[in-house]
Amino acid sequence: MARINDHYLKLKAGYLFPEIGRRVSAFGEANASACKDKPIIKLGIGDVTEPLPEAIRIAMHKAVDDMGNRDSFHGYGPEQGYAWLREAIVENDYRSRGCDIAADEVFVSDGSKCDSGNFLDILAAGGGSSGGNTIAVCDPVYPVYVDTNVMVGNTGGANDAGEYAGLVYLPVTAENNFTPPLPEGKVDVIYLCSPNNPTGAVMTKADLAKWVEYAKANDALILYDAAYHAFITENDLPRSIYEIEGARDVAVEFRSFSKNAGFTGTRCAFTVVPKSVTAKSADGSDVDLHRLWNRRQSTKFNGVSYIVQRGAEAAYSEEGKRQIADLIAFYMANARIVLDTVAGLGMQAFGGVNAPYIWLKTPDGLDSWGFFDKLLGECHVVGTPGSGFGAAGEGYFRISAFNSRENVEEAMGRVKASLK
Amino acid sequence: MARINDHYLKLKAGYLFPEIGRRVSAFGEANASACKDKPIIKLGIGDVTEPLPEAIRIAMHKAVDDMGNRDSFHGYGPEQGYAWLREAIVENDYRSRGCDIAADEVFVSDGSKCDSGNFLDILAAGGGSSGGNTIAVCDPVYPVYVDTNVMVGNTGGANDAGEYAGLVYLPVTAENNFTPPLPEGKVDVIYLCSPNNPTGAVMTKADLAKWVEYAKANDALILYDAAYHAFITENDLPRSIYEIEGARDVAVEFRSFSKNAGFTGTRCAFTVVPKSVTAKSADGSDVDLHRLWNRRQSTKFNGVSYIVQRGAEAAYSEEGKRQIADLIAFYMANARIVLDTVAGLGMQAFGGVNAPYIWLKTPDGLDSWGFFDKLLGECHVVGTPGSGFGAAGEGYFRISAFNSRENVEEAMGRVKASLK
Repeated sequence: MARINDHYLKLKAGYLFPEIGRRVSAFGEANASACKDKPIIKLGIGDVTEPLPEAIRIAMHKAVDDMGNRDSFHGYGPEQGYAWLREAIVENDYRSRGCDIAADEVFVSDGSKCDSGNFLDILAAGGGSSGGNTIAVCDPVYPVYVDTNVMVGNTGGANDAGEYAGLVYLPVTAENNFTPPLPEGKVDVIYLCSPNNPTGAVMTKADLAKWVEYAKANDALILYDAAYHAFITENDLPRSIYEIEGARDVAVEFRSFSKNAGFTGTRCAFTVVPKSVTAKSADGSDVDLHRLWNRRQSTKFNGVSYIVQRGAEAAYSEEGKRQIADLIAFYMANARIVLDTVAGLGMQAFGGVNAPYIWLKTPDGLDSWGFFDKLLGECHVVGTPGSGFGAAGEGYFRISAFNSRENVEEAMGRVKASLK
Repeated sequence: MARINDHYLKLKAGYLFPEIGRRVSAFGEANASACKDKPIIKLGIGDVTEPLPEAIRIAMHKAVDDMGNRDSFHGYGPEQGYAWLREAIVENDYRSRGCDIAADEVFVSDGSKCDSGNFLDILAAGGGSSGGNTIAVCDPVYPVYVDTNVMVGNTGGANDAGEYAGLVYLPVTAENNFTPPLPEGKVDVIYLCSPNNPTGAVMTKADLAKWVEYAKANDALILYDAAYHAFITENDLPRSIYEIEGARDVAVEFRSFSKNAGFTGTRCAFTVVPKSVTAKSADGSDVDLHRLWNRRQSTKFNGVSYIVQRGAEAAYSEEGKRQIADLIAFYMANARIVLDTVAGLGMQAFGGVNAPYIWLKTPDGLDSWGFFDKLLGECHVVGTPGSGFGAAGEGYFRISAFNSRENVEEAMGRVKASLK
């Protein structure tokens, strides 16, 4: 008789964003006429709203035409991505910042969410207590890191606060300036995300160097999520973990075109797995993770659409870069408006300077979902409850800068009027 | 210290097609001038070669334009696929053939290779001997089914013939007319592929009914791969397992736009998980696989590119259907040329009538790789050694009908001249 993966039954409720979606729909239905006069504005999920840059669209039109001629038609591409895209990535994102990354260390994919989840395929499952890996995550944290570890059995069950047994949580709060503290015990795999989702904090080179040192000392692996690197405005902050010496021996980096080039609906990302990153096999020998990930991708993936890869390539053209810079500046101006509004109301707010997220302390002793309900009920504005990102996120709230100027201004006007 | 998934170390050599690629490159380099006069023709990998149908390109151009306007821009789509595509799939592929499948039982993805591998995520791992699932595959078989099971620990190591301990192999050979026999013992999960890759055989309704009955009697799950359904020319053969009564309680079906609509480089597929398919949890209760797969996809996947989904939708327009029918007819005429050629040479050949693959017995006592080398060396023609698909494929060879008419005619001319 067929048996399910019982670890799935440990997962708490739904994934955060579908849950928010359900609550917003229910509110909209129950208050249809009020929502007609004052439409709901969503600053919740981190989804881009502005048109795909023209240079990218031009490249994709050309790629669609390529598919119409036998001579320029593209069937199966390399599972790892086309060489021209991998080269463009390395040249622009790594060599330009002095990082020693080769094109064949880049694996193009359809999303960082997929990659960060799938990467667990090549690591031992079952968690540290069964001889596998002890996993550390920040708290609050992007829920996908946690849920995918639950799914492969790296954790036990969850308590009422949503904390899973066996996971090591590293609290990031205002008290430690949202800088993840090194774990007290020994952990094997560490997720870091900078600029951070949800707190908007950015790790400095010194912060990262501590983690690289920790990983080296403990034969640990760092899974570094740099999906928001393009939003960094301060020059001395690292865009990539490979700006830190020694990182290419201990870190894998996830990147995406979703947030910079507006690809959330177009789908392209990549993962860097340096050939020097190893982990231990059961017999104690070092195994090259590049080789395993390559095997995983060739066997379980068939590459990203040719048309989409041509679009991603155009993100690195001169026009593409300029148009993306404009997009980023646009969203960061939104972030400024949000920051100014909440600061003007006397709320404590973080992020929003090198990241498209503003992370604020909920006012008036409200808990995260309480503030969510207040904001939705009074202002028809949707944000994300901090507790949805983990127990240490309770009492915080995330507002995203991804929306039109008009919507952000309207939403902040309502917030100002309601909460003043 | 970080630990790898040691099951990966059990995998034999490379995945078949990269291995062929390496051999062909080496031959081409060593015989550069001969290959200039008589270019290598590839009838190996099952990759389409003809332009993407016009209706699909038109739809994709429009979708790229949609992304250029704020009002028609698409960010994150539903992880399960857009409702309009799921509806078109159900209407055209299922309702039209009397299959009781609902749109929300269809999960749109970027490939059947991914889905068939990823589906193991929601099933117990570790293999039947450890309380998990005993897996049955045909032999020969699409290598991805086997390799992905090795990766999750459903098997032991491999013997010299490439057979993994713990897997149940169902030999399909000329002796049983390439119809998979029911297993002697009890198995929990069965992979079936019809029209079959690599043999080109198609299961009848009566064949499938036996498997549905077996699955019901043994609480087993059927993973049914129908990627080649569009190549069926004989009317009474089933296109979907859901044409069999009771199948929606025991079977999941994988489908793809790769081979019918020419999407190998464009990437779109789907998996049908009926809400009535269940498997057992550790406590013996029945768990709905639809719910688990939905959770898997929402957590580890972010949907297929909007642009690509619009292209897939156009495959169901009147123009799209007509253009796809022409494409299929074109490839099947190629198959006819191959079949006639090898039959004319007195070889025993199978498939090629309801499938784009011709499966032949290697002549002159050559083994599969021996015939591969002969065909490459003498004719500069690449096919796929049957032994690459499993031990029972030894002594067979696959020729694919995917190429231009000119190349197929040229290749078969060379074969005729060389092997007569």
